[in-house]
Amino acid sequence: MTAYFPNVDKVKYEGTSTNNPLAFRHYDPEQKILGKSMAEHLRFAACYWHNFCWDGADIFGQPTFNRPWLAGENDMQAAKAKADVAFEFFEKSSIPYYCFHDTDVAPQGNSIDEYINNFSEMVDVLEAKQASSGVKLLWGTANLFSHPRYAAGAATSPDPEVFSFGATQVVHAMNATKRLGGENYVLWGGREGYESLLNTDLRQEREQFGRFMQMVVEHKYKIGFTGTLLIEPKPQEPTKHQYDYDSATVYGFLKQFGLENEFKVNIEANHATLAGHSFHHEIATAISLGIFGSVDANRGDAQNGWDTDQFPMDVSELTLVMYEILKSGGFTTGGFNFDTKLRRQSTSPDDLLLAHIGGMDSLALALKKAAKLIENDFLAEKIKQRYSGWNTDLGKQISDGQFTLESLANHATSKGFSPSISSGQQEYLENQVNGVLFD
Amino acid sequence: MTAYFPNVDKVKYEGTSTNNPLAFRHYDPEQKILGKSMAEHLRFAACYWHNFCWDGADIFGQPTFNRPWLAGENDMQAAKAKADVAFEFFEKSSIPYYCFHDTDVAPQGNSIDEYINNFSEMVDVLEAKQASSGVKLLWGTANLFSHPRYAAGAATSPDPEVFSFGATQVVHAMNATKRLGGENYVLWGGREGYESLLNTDLRQEREQFGRFMQMVVEHKYKIGFTGTLLIEPKPQEPTKHQYDYDSATVYGFLKQFGLENEFKVNIEANHATLAGHSFHHEIATAISLGIFGSVDANRGDAQNGWDTDQFPMDVSELTLVMYEILKSGGFTTGGFNFDTKLRRQSTSPDDLLLAHIGGMDSLALALKKAAKLIENDFLAEKIKQRYSGWNTDLGKQISDGQFTLESLANHATSKGFSPSISSGQQEYLENQVNGVLFD
Amino acid sequence: MTAYFPNVDKVKYEGTSTNNPLAFRHYDPEQKILGKSMAEHLRFAACYWHNFCWDGADIFGQPTFNRPWLAGENDMQAAKAKADVAFEFFEKSSIPYYCFHDTDVAPQGNSIDEYINNFSEMVDVLEAKQASSGVKLLWGTANLFSHPRYAAGAATSPDPEVFSFGATQVVHAMNATKRLGGENYVLWGGREGYESLLNTDLRQEREQFGRFMQMVVEHKYKIGFTGTLLIEPKPQEPTKHQYDYDSATVYGFLKQFGLENEFKVNIEANHATLAGHSFHHEIATAISLGIFGSVDANRGDAQNGWDTDQFPMDVSELTLVMYEILKSGGFTTGGFNFDTKLRRQSTSPDDLLLAHIGGMDSLALALKKAAKLIENDFLAEKIKQRYSGWNTDLGKQISDGQFTLESLANHATSKGFSPSISSGQQEYLENQVNGVLFD
Amino acid sequence: MTAYFPNVDKVKYEGTSTNNPLAFRHYDPEQKILGKSMAEHLRFAACYWHNFCWDGADIFGQPTFNRPWLAGENDMQAAKAKADVAFEFFEKSSIPYYCFHDTDVAPQGNSIDEYINNFSEMVDVLEAKQASSGVKLLWGTANLFSHPRYAAGAATSPDPEVFSFGATQVVHAMNATKRLGGENYVLWGGREGYESLLNTDLRQEREQFGRFMQMVVEHKYKIGFTGTLLIEPKPQEPTKHQYDYDSATVYGFLKQFGLENEFKVNIEANHATLAGHSFHHEIATAISLGIFGSVDANRGDAQNGWDTDQFPMDVSELTLVMYEILKSGGFTTGGFNFDTKLRRQSTSPDDLLLAHIGGMDSLALALKKAAKLIENDFLAEKIKQRYSGWNTDLGKQISDGQFTLESLANHATSKGFSPSISSGQQEYLENQVNGVLFD
Repeated sequence: MTAYFPNVDKVKYEGTSTNNPLAFRHYDPEQKILGKSMAEHLRFAACYWHNFCWDGADIFGQPTFNRPWLAGENDMQAAKAKADVAFEFFEKSSIPYYCFHDTDVAPQGNSIDEYINNFSEMVDVLEAKQASSGVKLLWGTANLFSHPRYAAGAATSPDPEVFSFGATQVVHAMNATKRLGGENYVLWGGREGYESLLNTDLRQEREQFGRFMQMVVEHKYKIGFTGTLLIEPKPQEPTKHQYDYDSATVYGFLKQFGLENEFKVNIEANHATLAGHSFHHEIATAISLGIFGSVDANRGDAQNGWDTDQFPMDVSELTLVMYEILKSGGFTTGGFNFDTKLRRQSTSPDDLLLAHIGGMDSLALALKKAAKLIENDFLAEKIKQRYSGWNTDLGKQISDGQFTLESLANHATSKGFSPSISSGQQEYLENQVNGVLFD
Repeated sequence: MTAYFPNVDKVKYEGTSTNNPLAFRHYDPEQKILGKSMAEHLRFAACYWHNFCWDGADIFGQPTFNRPWLAGENDMQAAKAKADVAFEFFEKSSIPYYCFHDTDVAPQGNSIDEYINNFSEMVDVLEAKQASSGVKLLWGTANLFSHPRYAAGAATSPDPEVFSFGATQVVHAMNATKRLGGENYVLWGGREGYESLLNTDLRQEREQFGRFMQMVVEHKYKIGFTGTLLIEPKPQEPTKHQYDYDSATVYGFLKQFGLENEFKVNIEANHATLAGHSFHHEIATAISLGIFGSVDANRGDAQNGWDTDQFPMDVSELTLVMYEILKSGGFTTGGFNFDTKLRRQSTSPDDLLLAHIGGMDSLALALKKAAKLIENDFLAEKIKQRYSGWNTDLGKQISDGQFTLESLANHATSKGFSPSISSGQQEYLENQVNGVLFD
Repeated sequence: MTAYFPNVDKVKYEGTSTNNPLAFRHYDPEQKILGKSMAEHLRFAACYWHNFCWDGADIFGQPTFNRPWLAGENDMQAAKAKADVAFEFFEKSSIPYYCFHDTDVAPQGNSIDEYINNFSEMVDVLEAKQASSGVKLLWGTANLFSHPRYAAGAATSPDPEVFSFGATQVVHAMNATKRLGGENYVLWGGREGYESLLNTDLRQEREQFGRFMQMVVEHKYKIGFTGTLLIEPKPQEPTKHQYDYDSATVYGFLKQFGLENEFKVNIEANHATLAGHSFHHEIATAISLGIFGSVDANRGDAQNGWDTDQFPMDVSELTLVMYEILKSGGFTTGGFNFDTKLRRQSTSPDDLLLAHIGGMDSLALALKKAAKLIENDFLAEKIKQRYSGWNTDLGKQISDGQFTLESLANHATSKGFSPSISSGQQEYLENQVNGVLFD
Repeated sequence: MTAYFPNVDKVKYEGTSTNNPLAFRHYDPEQKILGKSMAEHLRFAACYWHNFCWDGADIFGQPTFNRPWLAGENDMQAAKAKADVAFEFFEKSSIPYYCFHDTDVAPQGNSIDEYINNFSEMVDVLEAKQASSGVKLLWGTANLFSHPRYAAGAATSPDPEVFSFGATQVVHAMNATKRLGGENYVLWGGREGYESLLNTDLRQEREQFGRFMQMVVEHKYKIGFTGTLLIEPKPQEPTKHQYDYDSATVYGFLKQFGLENEFKVNIEANHATLAGHSFHHEIATAISLGIFGSVDANRGDAQNGWDTDQFPMDVSELTLVMYEILKSGGFTTGGFNFDTKLRRQSTSPDDLLLAHIGGMDSLALALKKAAKLIENDFLAEKIKQRYSGWNTDLGKQISDGQFTLESLANHATSKGFSPSISSGQQEYLENQVNGVLFD
């Protein structure tokens, strides 16, 4: 087989003086930042689906990419050709991890048996390829949204046979993830939502969803999978409303079913913005709730109301995201997975490399700048000073539960409290952050 | 004192044949619907703030309403004149309940003592007016967002003195609510959120917020207030992001602090749409989570990104909302409060009456149509049939925890499950609903 | 061939007392409203594309509909089977008109010659079917957005060969439309926009677009097509930004190229809302600019940021739209085309009938209610009274250009003008409209 | 009088090594970029309204800023104190221009005469202050939206007396602008729109608006004002819908009334995003239509649906905007006016300086980076190559009108055109731009 990416052997760090567009200008895997290598900090992964399963079609248009391996989409030969290209890409792009859905890597087949056999055979292929290439699995997942059986959801389907089929896929995908050394297992409930409240029983579907997730946890322990379970929030699309709307919503769901210590979230930038939040907000919120796990690194279009899954290029935003992650201790099992799509006109094989290089360099640069923010941490200093009242006697006594509402009111009244605000200094802090970003 | 609404003595039900715009066409308080009177079902309330404290100013423009009682905004005389007009309105409009913030009814004063004295004096006034008019209090609340001290939040302020001042107001507002026979007490955290993540400690603010709410619950029991505590979700405005984003977010917050049995939500239609949800969604979600309490009945503008607080006039939407409420057993302590603003050009005193009449008639009509939906409940029938698989052995065994993920997968595989979807019949159901709405 | 819709012979008007879901409750084609039959007023059309070319796939999921005629998608035999089903549907649903893209009805082929031959052969088929069924063509159009050659636009492509291919399709589609008695010809510029400003020359693309439209006009006259040319505005999707953003934008484009008397707009409800406008706004704006032509009757989801193309069911909104259309004199060559998609779970053949029946009944009901609005036209009366100042001497002299800015200022100053506003009575008018809608 | 900004004498350029937050790190007025000084390129202006007329109130909260000069808001003494602070600020901040509304600088008075006299007196004051300080006027404007008389619009008011009052203000504001050497005159139609279509005559209001603008043009010539007339688009807020929605809409309006050579647009970043466009889009669109004039430099919040008017800090976005402006030849009479508000918690006087410094430095940096983009103009190169087909014979003949639709179709068919797309290279270009931004 000939190479699909003939123009490069392996993308390497060449620094900002290079004119080679197929080189890294900032991502130097071995470079140490705050005591860890860039590779250890960033833990990049490429996705199987958009890169190797998507043909460039959109809802109004036919394929544009002309990927040769997609010609025989449903046979095992095509699946193997696809795996060849995928691993050629992972190796050449210097991306250490990958992520996949069961049906990305193997044909779904025409029956539950065919599904199992196809997938099993392809897991052997992947295992061999991982071994020979050194590429590792960041996470695996099961696709419970593309097949027509899942049109009304999987765990939340009105039909328990659909729930059961979904359970079957998840068992096999979890087992495969364990076998392939995956560091996380992801659940994205793409159809776990509703199209219309007229035909939907919200309480029933929530109970089903809770039970499903409990079964997933039990299975994790049963098979001894030591990775992290991740739920990926998304507010809508393909459904009108999706139950895993955002991190705060997922947190409430986890609390209801006693799962808050079993799952973390895989936050996708574009899902954050579709939910009406900034990417930064979702990261900071998940961290503050203790459920931050991993990131699907991409970006949406601020003017378009659907998942554009563009490559993350906004270094300013990524720096603040990286700052939060570093401050929380950095990734443990998580990483930055590029859940990203080429633009439909980016039809050259090199575009796939160039786009990932851009994303990796942007995050590497964000890492460097976030480290600079931490070295002279005026943000932490400002916050410490701003909330300093909570370290006074009054603040501590309130926090410690020594006041009732009434005793506190009496205290305030007897003291004649007349607090005024001091400047929040938002613009000053923005200036300072820009200084770190651009000077 | 002369009447501010001289054109009407009391708005009465006259039926659809009337030409009198100052009469109800649908709201007949005594009419029985599904065994209860309309008044008992709908439990209408008018708000003090938009109706009697707002002068028609918006962020780009000066007052247009020329309300005579607002001339001396900060003195007690003006507060009493305001109360006169308010109760004239409540009585004439046939609205049985009202709602208020502490600083709507009394001048905030220049110190904590003045605040307490002013408010206390006005509670006496309100008590007398309630007694003479028969108007009742649906809920009271404290305004913890307008005074500059709350610019950075109240419970979530970086300054514990601000927290304490907020606690003081809440104590007095809760006590007043109890004394005035209020059936609920509401907390809307208008500034409990952030303007910028750069100067915000999310975890710290969440802890403060949780402690504050626990103190509110403790005070409720201490004073023997038997009404319902309500949190009112809103996603943003005035802040960039508000912590009580929507019902699902509030649920997670309540679960974290062990408060899920102590609070319910007061859902505002316009807040739902600002959060990216339909009004119907928020109602159905809160019911499904067991936290539905009361409603701020208004509507937003689908093209404008701020709280327009228009009167609820979309009978189709209100019918589905009413259907959900009826199916859940109807209001207990809650009701429909018109948290609604006149348009800035609606400068005639009659406009205030006309607008409320329109809202009340729309909801009364929605009640009648929702009752018709329930009498021949094809929606419930469809849902029952759609989820019927969960009453089979397979469904029950899954729900009851008799399957592990693996045993279910084995079961599905051995049976060769190959489920297909049956029609969700969304369009058919929409047709049927339109039939009930319009035939 | 067996029928695809075996459960109905022809959908008929049965009135609101019917229990037959496959009957009209409001659409009685012969019923006279304001002197014209409902059929003449509403001029319903069904679309070829969503109904007969779409398989239920969405961007995250595979086909759900199992349409037998789509099996051999690219051959002429399949195209003829599709036409059989389409005309079976048109006849059985009592929809008098249809609309199509060239590549809906004929395979696009592998070359420009194949395209021409396939299309030509299918136009013969359509002509025969129209003759035998009495179904008429509301409008034809050319699909210049699905084939990969159009990924960067058609008229606005950077490649003049793509422009030329587009011109070829439009020539053939216009000629076919004329031959089939089409009453309009539509241009929807699905890819006439940009994905990124970084690689786009806006001025160049606009010039190309203007020239293309001029060529279309010239061709219309050359072939003696007497129908109306229509541009269909859409703000985005599939592109990031589409040049025909909304009616006001199209108007400016037409003015620039001297085309404002040659084109009208085909307004789609869901495109209006994606552009940040209400459907009502777009209709009223197009009428006020003199460019209203036809309607793609559907609805979007207020919470979803993409084209959901649901069936129009909101009778309240449709009544105001219908009111504007009636006041402007009604459709001439235009009509209500259902550019509507079933929900992906609506997998039964009957769903296609039920959905169109719901849309037709909703518009028929809106027509009846709009006629009632006009019979006692309090809206016109209010507007007449509200703007009456413009019929005074002052108003007329300003309008007639008798004042300069300065002479008017002097006049205002010398008279000491001190105008105040009178009530806009928005809530009163909303109440009155609800009275017409629901009483 | 004591200084309001005592901590600084004059903000100066100190370069990126400074630790002084009250210094410029990038804005060096005299530094030459592409042959012109930074000051000549950027033409910064500060606004009178947000800085000196706003007290920190928002729609849910009371003033927070405690500006001493606002105490006696309606008297001339207060207006003069305000002017003192304003010019202290202009001088200290090193901003060469300012902008004002008539009623920012003078009390509106209680009659048309008082308005005229107050304003006239304050123009004398401003003239003297300009002379002594060297601060210049970028543009003047009249506030036709705050006073209650304008609740239903000014030029588009249903009342011709309101139109006349508006004309009076514009005459005086234009005359003052001329006298003060203003380089532009701006019209922002804050209430030229509608709240409800139920009481609005769109065609009538458009005619009024057109006539008003024609009168403005006539007056410009009459008084010999040689500056530029600017319309400022905004889609909504305060009204539900504003007629000057965006640049493309304004262009259509100008064309209808023959005004396209008389007006240019003043583009505000936050108005662009409220209209569903990127800031970059609005700039590029206005330039491509030949109507680009000036910029209100600010930013909105991507998650909030109202005008937050924050300071522009996104250097990446500003660089692309600056690139477009430089490529179009740069500003002539226009400039960057900071139509920006402090956050409500930014209560220190220094915050006003810091915020402007941040905005100025961000734009100065954007200018430097845009110049770098132009020095090695790979974007222009890519566009030239991408559209090169339009310089071939085929492209030129199409552009020159040598083809009819039919002759082009025949040409395409006879040649057997089968165009395919080449890569749009969007990701590559994004990488290259990031290289310029961050390397």
